[in-house]
Amino acid sequence: MQTRFHRICLVGAGLIGGSWGLALKRRGYTGSIVGCDRPEVLDRALELGAIDECAPNLPSGVRSADLVILAAPVNAIIELLTQVRAEAEPGALVTDTGSTKRAIVARAREVFASAPLFLAGHPLAGRERSGIEHAGAALFEGSRYVFTPLTSSHLEDERVLAFTSLVKHVGAEPFVTDADTHDRALALLSHLPQLCATALAGVAADEGRLHDLPLELAAAGFRDMTRLAESPYGVWRDVCTTNADNLRPALEDLIRKLEEMKTNLGSAGLESDFEKGRRLRERWKDSH
Amino acid sequence: MQTRFHRICLVGAGLIGGSWGLALKRRGYTGSIVGCDRPEVLDRALELGAIDECAPNLPSGVRSADLVILAAPVNAIIELLTQVRAEAEPGALVTDTGSTKRAIVARAREVFASAPLFLAGHPLAGRERSGIEHAGAALFEGSRYVFTPLTSSHLEDERVLAFTSLVKHVGAEPFVTDADTHDRALALLSHLPQLCATALAGVAADEGRLHDLPLELAAAGFRDMTRLAESPYGVWRDVCTTNADNLRPALEDLIRKLEEMKTNLGSAGLESDFEKGRRLRERWKDSH
Repeated sequence: MQTRFHRICLVGAGLIGGSWGLALKRRGYTGSIVGCDRPEVLDRALELGAIDECAPNLPSGVRSADLVILAAPVNAIIELLTQVRAEAEPGALVTDTGSTKRAIVARAREVFASAPLFLAGHPLAGRERSGIEHAGAALFEGSRYVFTPLTSSHLEDERVLAFTSLVKHVGAEPFVTDADTHDRALALLSHLPQLCATALAGVAADEGRLHDLPLELAAAGFRDMTRLAESPYGVWRDVCTTNADNLRPALEDLIRKLEEMKTNLGSAGLESDFEKGRRLRERWKDSH
Repeated sequence: MQTRFHRICLVGAGLIGGSWGLALKRRGYTGSIVGCDRPEVLDRALELGAIDECAPNLPSGVRSADLVILAAPVNAIIELLTQVRAEAEPGALVTDTGSTKRAIVARAREVFASAPLFLAGHPLAGRERSGIEHAGAALFEGSRYVFTPLTSSHLEDERVLAFTSLVKHVGAEPFVTDADTHDRALALLSHLPQLCATALAGVAADEGRLHDLPLELAAAGFRDMTRLAESPYGVWRDVCTTNADNLRPALEDLIRKLEEMKTNLGSAGLESDFEKGRRLRERWKDSH
């Protein structure tokens, strides 16, 4: 595998950062990968082969790299931007993997007014469990990798073209949009489903309803509809705060829909809901 | 495979009935399987090897069988009970696969006061697609098969013991409870998740929210959280009407939880919801 990046710094070597390292290694990346994270995370990432070196601190890790991947929760990324900008080589590409994009892009516009170049990214390849233990070389395979560039001219920059190649190398499909569209779409397509799973599991967990009922009667539907309830709050806290304006109306729509369903249990109103749901699934399948 | 049942009548040869036929055949059942359904369904079931014979009508199919499996939506099962009772051999076992149990058990108590014996059943092995095309010999494998007997003494009846063996033969694990517990538990563990999936897909489908947004940004979470939205309304209509009294408070709990989440976006309130969800998932895993 050929790439212009000779040294990659993973700031955060958990699920996403660790998977970047493992995926690059599996594809025969011959440069070096340095990790910045807590010592115990780095030790494990080294053991698993996700990184080649542990940076003693952030500046030394970032300074030597021509590609810096910020793989942390959204607010941690935002807090890192100034320091990373100060330490990174002028010729480096800095990219992130945050789950919401407007807040990161807004801050990056201030911080990265000049070189190095910043590319906001979001691999749509999460998992309900975080941490290096759940990282995998195949995590990005078959998924989309969203770019919300600070300006569309960045898409022609050689570093961005090279990173786009890397994304394809690890099996993902790049998808370019703007941060606003990303956050509005993800509110409906990712953040609302997450809250829904957490709410469903919460309702089932509440004392008085299920405490005397056999959980053995939960089957595949329940399993799939509550899988996301295992997701770490540390990631979702930042998603909720940085996308609350989109999430609130989405929650309101869902609540309204459920109220309608409650009224229509057993009437023709539910039939149209089922029809609508089925059509949306058809559209979704067509888009994948 | 040994069984006292020499001739099994599948009333309904769709997803569940067809899967019973295919599963029995794969396990080497040597008796004959006769199907009652619309001619085009029976032709296909015959072609796929799910049945050996097509009954020309319900009475002739039921009359000759020592095991009758009613595999239809709940209200269709209820409507069939009187005729099946009238036609079935006194020594036969009649069982059903309906998704709610109180309405069926209540009617069966009236109809099956004397022989033949009726055993209410529910294989927790649905799929989001119905029909013989989606039937499979492995459908019941690893799933639970609920019995809600009219009286617990039925569990000692040789026919029920023999059917329990059949259930184990096709890879499912029998689970005995009462119809009331079943319906209350399934409201939370199956019916509420179904409505939730339909509502989520419906919200995403509504014009004005997603129509200008890229569905390509939907990933695994959305896929899993809306899979059930493909489920056939024909099955769920009966589930909703016959379990509306349990579903309404479950919907109210979910709505209340989502309202709280809307208020708590970004506050510590959400953290406890995520904690609660994760603990419920642990309990669920322990039960499986």
